[in-house]
Amino acid sequence: MSSSAFTINAVVTTFGGKLYKLTHTSPTLKASIDANVFVPPQAANEKVPVLIYLSGLTCTPQNASEKGFLHAWAAHYGLAIIFPDTSPRGLELPGEHDSWDFGSAAGFYVNATQEPWAGHYKMYDYITEELPELVFTDPEFGSKLDGSRVSLSGHSMGGHGALTLFLKNPGKYKSVSAFAPISNPINAPWGVKAFTGYFGEDNKDLWKQHDATELIGNYSGPTPDILIDVGKGDGFYQQKQLLPENLVEASKGTSYEGKVNLRLHDGYDHSYYFVSSFAKDHIEHAVKYLSGKSVL
Amino acid sequence: MSSSAFTINAVVTTFGGKLYKLTHTSPTLKASIDANVFVPPQAANEKVPVLIYLSGLTCTPQNASEKGFLHAWAAHYGLAIIFPDTSPRGLELPGEHDSWDFGSAAGFYVNATQEPWAGHYKMYDYITEELPELVFTDPEFGSKLDGSRVSLSGHSMGGHGALTLFLKNPGKYKSVSAFAPISNPINAPWGVKAFTGYFGEDNKDLWKQHDATELIGNYSGPTPDILIDVGKGDGFYQQKQLLPENLVEASKGTSYEGKVNLRLHDGYDHSYYFVSSFAKDHIEHAVKYLSGKSVL
Repeated sequence: MSSSAFTINAVVTTFGGKLYKLTHTSPTLKASIDANVFVPPQAANEKVPVLIYLSGLTCTPQNASEKGFLHAWAAHYGLAIIFPDTSPRGLELPGEHDSWDFGSAAGFYVNATQEPWAGHYKMYDYITEELPELVFTDPEFGSKLDGSRVSLSGHSMGGHGALTLFLKNPGKYKSVSAFAPISNPINAPWGVKAFTGYFGEDNKDLWKQHDATELIGNYSGPTPDILIDVGKGDGFYQQKQLLPENLVEASKGTSYEGKVNLRLHDGYDHSYYFVSSFAKDHIEHAVKYLSGKSVL
Repeated sequence: MSSSAFTINAVVTTFGGKLYKLTHTSPTLKASIDANVFVPPQAANEKVPVLIYLSGLTCTPQNASEKGFLHAWAAHYGLAIIFPDTSPRGLELPGEHDSWDFGSAAGFYVNATQEPWAGHYKMYDYITEELPELVFTDPEFGSKLDGSRVSLSGHSMGGHGALTLFLKNPGKYKSVSAFAPISNPINAPWGVKAFTGYFGEDNKDLWKQHDATELIGNYSGPTPDILIDVGKGDGFYQQKQLLPENLVEASKGTSYEGKVNLRLHDGYDHSYYFVSSFAKDHIEHAVKYLSGKSVL
């Protein structure tokens, strides 16, 4: 048995499953980073499929684990969840901790090309390659997870991550859904700030390679429905940071036309009170494509 | 329409209902204090019954609201929830903030008789009288709640509060349940510290009046089943802070014999990962006695 890459900080029993709170040193990031992995009770008897849930700005793996309530439904349907962190940790790069929407806890799921970020802020490679490989080969829980059945979801910046990772890797993930995603970052203040910092002001081709609204037109691959929920009371939606309608509009005339299911909900804000309210729908969306099980 | 006693800090849409985040100045406590009130969607059409959920040491109303997940099931069954705070706030009594298990956020749901607490730490009166009266007469949401159908639940110190308030007020509450409750505080370090501070070392009669294990022998009134869940991996259970078996033992030979349903669960700890895992059962327990609805 190989040794684990992870330090296990805690194993928490919840909803009949186990939540592993992990830390490791990432060769990709050349930094420390956390991750949580929820293993549902069904894993005792069969390999279970996996949802990677990408969190939003300012979050650690703890926020969604504690407040998103995704694991309640994952335990019901027999789904594991990987909760990655949102940036490398423990670095002290110049300016890294100055903004809540750039640098630490704001990695945007890209590989930065600009200094001082380029050597460490490679969250795209980390999420698509390093982290799942370490999880699926972990001697403690890896053999219980089916690395061939993986879906994506995420919230806000993590919704951006989920959509772009799905669209950039046709067939790699079985489905994608998003809560209040940053859907067109090159046209939103958060995205412009992040991509300017990580890619430079002039490299607009690279910007477009990490923008779901730009990517969907060139996508070719399987087309599971994309579920997107947004609250109309979400201040960031109102401030046009999210722009989910742009993604729907861009899907027209593509293989995704009519398959981007954008649901706008009266009253709901951007918080975990919103995410948890629709967590069941997103878990069921993933389960539908991961297990073929009817959830009706 | 009377004016509200509360300042509404936020109204959050969640699970189709509304979570009101409130602050007010309490005449009973002569202090500021917070409270959250969850109003389920069913309140649009009918008066709904109410669960008062009492939180544990160190908590504010936000912790259980965000992480307990009780409101998800309350929204399903049509139950309102009042989440009171755990002590007066904004005071600067001598030593008030020195300990995490005494003073602020540790009111223990008693009326203190010792100085400097006696003038302010009257959480028993506040929870049994003042707060529900203010909630049920509030012009914003009070008319949607049925003040004649109220049950209790709580966690740890709040489980102690739920059990003792129920047993001290026969018939006032329709049912009670508790997560990892301090069940016999006069024999547990937390309870001894709190009761010594709030009641004085020598007033053991008063101590016993706020100890569920002491109270159950003298209880006469309706006897709805009492549901208690405790995790065997709970460090405070292992340290004998909770002593739920003492309550079961004390119920023998009383009208509650065989009706205290203590469930011990392998692995679970003292956290909200434990509370949320069994939240559905506790909401269903309350609904059974509040609405007569079958939840099977």
